[in-house]
Parts: sequence; C-alpha cells; structure tokens
Amino acid sequence: MIVGNEPILLTPGPLTTSLATKQAMLRDWGSWDTAFNDITRSICRDLVAVVNAGEDYVCVPLQGSGTFSVEASIGNLVPRAGKVLVPNNGAYCARIVKICKYLNRAVVELPVAEDQPATGVMVAAALDADSSITHVAQVHCETGAGIANDLAGIAQACRQRGKGLIVDAMSSFAALPIDVRTIAFDALIAASGKCLEGVPGMGFVIAKKSVIENCAGNSHSLAMDLNDQYVYLQQTTQWRYTPPTHVVAALRAAIDQFLQEGGQPARGARYAANCATLIAGMAALGFRPFLAPAVQAPIIVTFHAPADPAYDFKSFYARVRAHGYIIYPGKLTQVETFRVGCIGAIDANEMRNVVTAVAETLRDLGIKQVAPILARRAA
Amino acid sequence: MIVGNEPILLTPGPLTTSLATKQAMLRDWGSWDTAFNDITRSICRDLVAVVNAGEDYVCVPLQGSGTFSVEASIGNLVPRAGKVLVPNNGAYCARIVKICKYLNRAVVELPVAEDQPATGVMVAAALDADSSITHVAQVHCETGAGIANDLAGIAQACRQRGKGLIVDAMSSFAALPIDVRTIAFDALIAASGKCLEGVPGMGFVIAKKSVIENCAGNSHSLAMDLNDQYVYLQQTTQWRYTPPTHVVAALRAAIDQFLQEGGQPARGARYAANCATLIAGMAALGFRPFLAPAVQAPIIVTFHAPADPAYDFKSFYARVRAHGYIIYPGKLTQVETFRVGCIGAIDANEMRNVVTAVAETLRDLGIKQVAPILARRAA
Repeated sequence: MIVGNEPILLTPGPLTTSLATKQAMLRDWGSWDTAFNDITRSICRDLVAVVNAGEDYVCVPLQGSGTFSVEASIGNLVPRAGKVLVPNNGAYCARIVKICKYLNRAVVELPVAEDQPATGVMVAAALDADSSITHVAQVHCETGAGIANDLAGIAQACRQRGKGLIVDAMSSFAALPIDVRTIAFDALIAASGKCLEGVPGMGFVIAKKSVIENCAGNSHSLAMDLNDQYVYLQQTTQWRYTPPTHVVAALRAAIDQFLQEGGQPARGARYAANCATLIAGMAALGFRPFLAPAVQAPIIVTFHAPADPAYDFKSFYARVRAHGYIIYPGKLTQVETFRVGCIGAIDANEMRNVVTAVAETLRDLGIKQVAPILARRAA
Repeated sequence: MIVGNEPILLTPGPLTTSLATKQAMLRDWGSWDTAFNDITRSICRDLVAVVNAGEDYVCVPLQGSGTFSVEASIGNLVPRAGKVLVPNNGAYCARIVKICKYLNRAVVELPVAEDQPATGVMVAAALDADSSITHVAQVHCETGAGIANDLAGIAQACRQRGKGLIVDAMSSFAALPIDVRTIAFDALIAASGKCLEGVPGMGFVIAKKSVIENCAGNSHSLAMDLNDQYVYLQQTTQWRYTPPTHVVAALRAAIDQFLQEGGQPARGARYAANCATLIAGMAALGFRPFLAPAVQAPIIVTFHAPADPAYDFKSFYARVRAHGYIIYPGKLTQVETFRVGCIGAIDANEMRNVVTAVAETLRDLGIKQVAPILARRAA
C-alpha cells in the first residue's frame, strides 16, 4: 500500500510537479488514436520552439529515462567509424564516455576539474590536437556538481572546425537560454521530468533534420533507433512502440504551464531566485557551496558537508525528510558534499522552508561545526 | 489543451485502467527515497510470485516500453556467439527476429501460419535440425492475430535439449497461467501496461538468478544492460537511471487490485468471459473471428473485415469511437481484419456495449454484407 505524507522533492529530477500536471494523468489514451497523436505532435512542435529552431530541426521523442535518449543520440548520430570528444567534469559526462565504450565508438576524454567549467578554449585545443575527432558530446549543466559549462564557446569551437555537437541538456533545457541560431548543435537531448516540470518516463532529441534523415543504419539498437522512430512518426503520426501515454499527457500539461509562465526566461528567473534564496539561507547557517558563484547553474547546489563528527548524510537526510524535504546525496569523488535542487513546481518560499528544516536538523543532531574542514583549512 | 470524452480502450495496451490506478499517480516520489524503493522491491517480489517462482528467480524492471525489455533480454541473455530460434506466426515474433539482426545475434526463423500456434513438436524438430541453436525466443500470446502459442510444449522441447528459453509474455502475463515449475524459462518479459492493468512506461524481466548473474559483459547497450541494472538494484535498492516514478506507483496500485481480484485465475476468467461475450455478440451481427476457438487467447480478437464495399477501416473506427469505444486495426499480412481487445479494467458489460456500438456503426455506414468474402467462399 502507498501511504505517507508527500514531501517536496529538491532533487535534480524526478521533481515536485504541479497538481495540474499530475491530474492530466487521470485519463487513458489510445496510442493509435488521433487525439493522442495530436498531443505528441504539439509537444514536438513546442519543444523545437523552446530553442528557437525552425523547419530544419525536428524533435524525436523516445521512451525511457533521459539516459536512453543520450545513448540513442550517440548510437544514431555518431557513425560507427566516428570519434567522440567528451569534456568530463562530472558523473553525467563520465556516463557518456561509458556509453561510447558500450557502443564501440572511439572516445577521447578531456578531463576537467569538477569545480571548473568546460570551455570553448579547452575544446578547441583538444579538437586541434586530434583531427580525427568527428563529434563533441557536451553536458550543458553537469548536475554532479551543478556547474554550467560554456556551451556557447564549445558550440563555436565545433562550428569553426566542422565538428558535430551533441548536447546533453537534460537539466538545463527550458531553464537556461539555448538558442540554436547562436548555439549550433546537431542534437540536443532532454527529458520530460526535468525543468519542463513533467513526470519522468520519456526523453526527446531535438536534432537537425538532415542529420536525423541521414543516419539510417547506424543504430546499435532497434528500440533506440532514432532514425526509425522519426521516419515512423512522420509516416503514421504514432510512436513505434507503446508510448508512456500518461507521461506524454502530463508533459503536454506541463508545457502548457511552462508557456503560461512565460517560457524559458520566466522559468530561468524563478529558478535563479530559488537558487539565490537557498544559498543565502544556507550561508547564514554556515554552509558553503562547492562552486564559485560565476559557474553555479540555478539547477542544483552542492554544499560541503559539515565538518562536525555528529554529521552523517543518512541521518541528516532522514531528519530533513521528516521536516518535509527530500534532498540529494553528493556525487563528487574527492569531497564530502550533499545537494539541494532549486527546480520543480516550487518557489523561494520552499527554499526558505528547507533552510528552516536544515536549521532544525542541525539542532536535532547536535551539529555545531557547519563549515567544512576544507574551508577552515583554506581560511 | 487536453479536451474530449474518455473512450474505453479495447486495444492490446495501453488499455483502460481503474481510477484507483490512475489516482496513484497524483503524488511525486523521490527516486533515491526509501519510500519509493520499497515500492520497487514489493513490485518485484509480487511479479516473481505470479509465476510461482522461488529464490532462484529475480525480477529486473526496465524503463521504456515492453519492446525495450525484450531487446534487453536478447542482448543480455544470448551470448554474442549464441544462436536464437524464433518461431514466427506474427508481428511480435517478427520483431524479435529484427532485434536479433540489430544485435548481431545469429537467428533462425521458424515460419508458422498466422492462424496456427507454434508447438513443442515444431520447435523440437527445428532444434534437432540445428544443434548450434542456443536459445528459443517465444512469444506466448501473439497479438498480431491473438493466438496462444503452445508454451508448455515449447518449454519442454527446450528443457529436454538443454536450450535456453526466453518468453515474450507481454500480453499473457497475469492473464494466462504460467508456472515456472512446469514451464521452465531462462527469462520471461512483460510490461506494466498490459494484463496487470497498470499504465505503460516500464517493462520487466523475470529471469533465472544464475542466468542474470552470469551475463555481465554481453549487453550491447548501457541503458539496457539488465545485468548492471540488477547488480545496482541489489546494491542500492535503486534503479540505475531515473525510473518512471508515477508509472511505478500506478503499477503498485494495479498489482494491489490484481491480488484483490484473486490473481491470475480470476483475471484470466474475467478476460475469458469478456472474450466469449464479445465473440457471441459479434457473431450475432455476422462477424467471424479469424482464429479457431481452440487457439484463441482471451486477450484480443481478430475479426474478418466486412465484405461490403461500404466498409473501410478508418470510417468504421471513427464511428465506433464516436460511440465511446477505441478498437484496433488488423495486423495480418494476407487478410483484411480489425481487432477488439478483451483486456483492461472492463467487464462483459463493456463487451456488450461495443457490440451495440458496432451494430449502430454498421447501420450508420450502410454496411449490409458483414460476413467476409473468405467465409462466403469457404461456405
């Protein structure tokens, strides 16, 4: 049985969605029916518009989590003899490297420190050092630390050298500005359950029409064959295999609310306010963010764990949860941290409330030394 | 905007679900949170029990439609040097052949007529003719025509010869009896949105623990690496990548109702009554089922299209839909047909109602010659 209160999710997806979005799932849809296929079509149209793309770009939805769409993009867009450069400053970059290895695509890793953004200069140098690289696969916002990479600079480096660019925009799409007229990409991937504030269960790829049309035969997988999914959608208006109909309906409702809010500029502004409120409140308790303000994306904030020996993440998590907020563990390799998301159908009030919940938790657990050991050493 | 009445889905999934199942989606779940991971664990436990499996079988859930889980099973369980026999009497069998080709697994197709079941005798002969075959991939209920294949006989043929058996039980699981103590399989695949009456968005594989544990390194895909998903679930209680949390919660609610109804025997009996009511009602209008009664599974019924020149599927579909019922197109290669599903949160009343809707539609469209041309020739 499903019981219990409903805590607010401060995680990088799944996140807290609006009641209207969830209520859109109170209906069953036939996947062959025009009424449903009209929803798919309108979603694809609206998603392409988010990045100001015209007729030369298309949106291909895909069942599964966002990672399925990332893998599908690598498998379809990078020819079997291609070579992928992956600037790596976190867990989601590392996942793309892993995908390339599974798919037998040659891969060159460009290591970047977890607290530093990948930049156009770095990527240009790596491309110049190895002319056999055909594609760059770039995570826009790496939520491992919460950093915003320099997508504009990287796109320019790719364009100048005629390299393909595949952008994992999972946690930035609809929140950070991405305009295809200035950031030229071959494909950009995101998912229903992130900053669009839908529920998880599908991803999508916004791709250059010519690229999608010309990649037949590349795919390592039938289920993830983006070219085949695209061609079938064009021919029939239907997904190839059973779509997650309720997730699709919820995404339609979520996009309606996104547009009503004012689109990306408004959503980005709300998240930025959330992020600023969170960091200010946590700072007042003694917490220090892992990232410098200039590279902090307003998606999720990594905080150094308290130095106090009374701190351990499990107890901290459980107490904060008991106060109604679900936070997220750290994902860094060197430093002990935890993360708090700023995204979802929430505003600055929830940020103030989670700070209160954290303050109560510090008192409950007897944590006095909130500043991290590293910070004290640096001081 | 989402508007309109809600028609009853008489399709092989997505299908009409109960309000209780849909209402379980009115809550957001953290994918890292124990409350959610308890749901995953309890679902896996209950699904293994449906086939009376003990400790030597495990359930591995996977994001995406059922086809993703079928592909994952082939990719993980069949070694790269393996060879798969696929008895083929319909579209879903053909899809497995296609998967094998994408995955570079050697495949032997055993053609079977669309109106005849694949049997143990056929499979035994094919296995004896080619000893290099390592696995049989068998669709239990082929919904292309709606036929029940002879799974017990095929399982016996495999066991006697030491061949692996992978069962696509997408549309039979929870409706037709499958007992692993008599039908030995390596893996059996089904999905949330079929006879369990959940919503679509995830599949699952019930597999021999020893087989899943020993297939590391086989997978062609990171996202579909069942071994990795299993190991990670064991270590962390979490899915590897973002699970479709609302779909999972709905499946929990759907399984609760399945168990309350009386499990597979009760569900199978309800569907059998639906099927009998449908066929009797349609027969009274002059419609003839494509399959002989002995091989008709109580999942979906294929009817010959009316011979009358006033019939075309699109108009027929639209009129029946206007009366509140969504039916399904035929999927046979030789004969013109349409299909009506018997599954979902519906009972014999809905079957009587769809017969009424069809009767009204015949009158509206001026269709007088309901019996198919083929039937008249045979008469």
